[in-house]
Amino acid sequence: MTVYPVILAGGRGTRLWPLSRSDKPKQFLPMHGEHSLFQRTVERHKKVEGLGRPLVVCGEADRFQVDDGLAGIGVTDATVMLEPQSRNTAPAIAAAAEALLREDPEAVLFVLPSDHLLTPDDAYFATLDAAFAAARAGKMVTFGVVPTHPETGYGYIKANGAAGPILPVEQFVEKPAVDEAGRMVADGAYYWNAGFFALSARALIEELERTAPDVVRAAASAVGAAQVRPGCIVLPADPYARAPDISIDYALFERTDKAVVAPITCRWSDVGSWSAYWDTLEKDGDGNAVRGKAITVDTRDSLIVSHRADVVALGVDRLAIVAADDAILVCPLDRAQDVKTVVETLKARRRNELLDVSPTVTRPWGGYTSIMSGQRFQVKHLFVLPGKRLSLQKHHHRAEHWVVVRGTAEVTVDDAVQTLSENQSTYIPLGAVHRLANPGRILLELIEVQTGSYLGEDDIVRLEDEWGRG
Amino acid sequence: MTVYPVILAGGRGTRLWPLSRSDKPKQFLPMHGEHSLFQRTVERHKKVEGLGRPLVVCGEADRFQVDDGLAGIGVTDATVMLEPQSRNTAPAIAAAAEALLREDPEAVLFVLPSDHLLTPDDAYFATLDAAFAAARAGKMVTFGVVPTHPETGYGYIKANGAAGPILPVEQFVEKPAVDEAGRMVADGAYYWNAGFFALSARALIEELERTAPDVVRAAASAVGAAQVRPGCIVLPADPYARAPDISIDYALFERTDKAVVAPITCRWSDVGSWSAYWDTLEKDGDGNAVRGKAITVDTRDSLIVSHRADVVALGVDRLAIVAADDAILVCPLDRAQDVKTVVETLKARRRNELLDVSPTVTRPWGGYTSIMSGQRFQVKHLFVLPGKRLSLQKHHHRAEHWVVVRGTAEVTVDDAVQTLSENQSTYIPLGAVHRLANPGRILLELIEVQTGSYLGEDDIVRLEDEWGRG
Repeated sequence: MTVYPVILAGGRGTRLWPLSRSDKPKQFLPMHGEHSLFQRTVERHKKVEGLGRPLVVCGEADRFQVDDGLAGIGVTDATVMLEPQSRNTAPAIAAAAEALLREDPEAVLFVLPSDHLLTPDDAYFATLDAAFAAARAGKMVTFGVVPTHPETGYGYIKANGAAGPILPVEQFVEKPAVDEAGRMVADGAYYWNAGFFALSARALIEELERTAPDVVRAAASAVGAAQVRPGCIVLPADPYARAPDISIDYALFERTDKAVVAPITCRWSDVGSWSAYWDTLEKDGDGNAVRGKAITVDTRDSLIVSHRADVVALGVDRLAIVAADDAILVCPLDRAQDVKTVVETLKARRRNELLDVSPTVTRPWGGYTSIMSGQRFQVKHLFVLPGKRLSLQKHHHRAEHWVVVRGTAEVTVDDAVQTLSENQSTYIPLGAVHRLANPGRILLELIEVQTGSYLGEDDIVRLEDEWGRG
Repeated sequence: MTVYPVILAGGRGTRLWPLSRSDKPKQFLPMHGEHSLFQRTVERHKKVEGLGRPLVVCGEADRFQVDDGLAGIGVTDATVMLEPQSRNTAPAIAAAAEALLREDPEAVLFVLPSDHLLTPDDAYFATLDAAFAAARAGKMVTFGVVPTHPETGYGYIKANGAAGPILPVEQFVEKPAVDEAGRMVADGAYYWNAGFFALSARALIEELERTAPDVVRAAASAVGAAQVRPGCIVLPADPYARAPDISIDYALFERTDKAVVAPITCRWSDVGSWSAYWDTLEKDGDGNAVRGKAITVDTRDSLIVSHRADVVALGVDRLAIVAADDAILVCPLDRAQDVKTVVETLKARRRNELLDVSPTVTRPWGGYTSIMSGQRFQVKHLFVLPGKRLSLQKHHHRAEHWVVVRGTAEVTVDDAVQTLSENQSTYIPLGAVHRLANPGRILLELIEVQTGSYLGEDDIVRLEDEWGRG
């Protein structure tokens, strides 16, 4: 019986705005070093022996970030399951179970959120073994973190039994008030609901058929109708969208009598707010956590994140200062939960550019950062990965000037192909069919100056695209 | 007897960092609308009848900002007196008096700091008439603002006499503690020392010969040796630098028995800190003052200044958030005086790029903003005023690509001259002698991509320059 990591990467979390955006949610941000939380989640379990191919569930728009993330950590054998729209965790996990069952009737799912931070210790890996064994035996295993403080931002699991690697679940408790949280921490029988699971695919589907039959029906028929390519399963919108929008906690764990909890003692965080993020970072002697460029004077217990501008914090306490290129958030760490209010405000004011698109956009061929916008022009910094090329395309409303500042570019304009190296430039007239490629071994960087009456990303006619984009 | 506005524009104030920089001090920033405090100071007195040519005293590096500022408000008859180095207010005022005396032995100086905000009322202009008359009669007139609250950031003047347009000065009081300030405000005989004056040139020099003879000696011989061009007086470093570094308050007012105070009731601020700046701005219903782009949620009595990124302030009170392109300051308004500590810290850390140069650099021909720096490249947004041109120049270490995004450029490269319009580009090879001009009637904007091994501003060989720069 093989255990398959099932990594849920479809979340769109907004509470880490302005860094997280619709096109680049939290799990794809390098928040704790070079690697993203998604990459760290996959890497963490590389050392577990005998795990099967990872299955990553994500939205279509995230496909390329997932591929890049996997490639960046040398994982080449994963399968990506694309959801036509996000339907919460129960349908995603049920679809994963259905897909794995078709290949391996004995499959065990090790379901992992892609946006949590966990620092494994030896006991963690021992607990995994026990949990996988319990799952094989038909138990619905949820992992519970031994609480270290009366956290009100998490749900709790009450175990029925004092100690042991696997305990029966007595009760799930929603996010508590602080008094109740304190009581639960003191009690010793409660664990933080960490939101990751070990489940036999067959036992899961059988149990869901009882607790949430609509979920199984939609998931099974979606997987049955899926377009399967090497390494990729594309779920069709119909019938997948007919699955109810419901979490696995509600659809399964609160309704089954097979739930058990596997307690873990290692450091864990859902990184669910700037305050939770601050908790996960190393601090200086004044309790300040800095990512990027900051100078603190008379400042304590604060979080500063800024990669472009230098932040100077003078005389502040427990403040979060998070600067993206186009937006700067300043709020007390204790108000970090209310960033969702900010996001609502931005939505109401139709400031979608601040919500949907991160200043740096990642594409399968590399990406770009918009560095300046003027009235009839825009300047972008493009980077193209070695060996990659953009689609063959044209624009109706803009011309483009390209100046190569690093590496080598192969530029096709209509019928002519030219090779440009550092300090060479070319011009793409409005309407010209063109393609940009990096034939070299190092990153290609260029500065693009667009001029024209309309500069939106949707003025693009793709004539040929390796990734099947229209 | 003519009254000449003498505008002191040589200050380097650091307390409005990160907006004010060495190359662009507070008086040249458009802090209250389109015009700078310097421009507003000149404009404010345009309606006073019979004033003579304004005389602006500033450092050599500010010459072009002063010229641009004057041109921007249609003032063409001013004289600029360039100080080789800043020597505080007494030498600057003495030199101005010496220079005016050579043209008009009856000259009266109306000495104005260029970085204060004053909202004149009718009474103000009536007081000016009385002050000028007193100055003609040999009095040393200082203006005093009727205090509205126990401000501890200003010095106070005690008048000897209950009311009247001109009162004898009994005493000058240094910045007080808050209790003393309260007592003085309640007393009614005290005024804020506003730092502007009316002085007969001849009477001033006579009095200074008694109270600060070193100042007069250095100023007189500097003016005697000055290089005088139309509209410009260049003071030589020797002997000007020999003048003691002393303010007019110490050199004159605290030592003379001819001091009188002219009380004014209008709104006045020295804009000496972000807190003082917040005081001068209009507030929304929550007491927030915003310049630029900001969204406030549960935020009160705060100051937000940001022209590039959107600032979102959530749940903060009496906080200053000031974002420049390359630096962001966050501090309580009540700690605004300590911004000078920040500046000291930046100096100690040799972060001169954050102190000396504003992201947007103004030049006599227009200016530029550095929008991106890479390892061997830099991208700038240049703007050239109609009819202006840059020096004929070359670079040893960089090549430049120019893309015109607005207006018309005339580009000379070695012996070839070409005209480029929007969406056209050109290339300046390393070592090529070149010149950029705007022959048109509208602003010329272009994107410059520099590539090379060294991209410092000092890699420039000027072969011809209208402004005499080497």
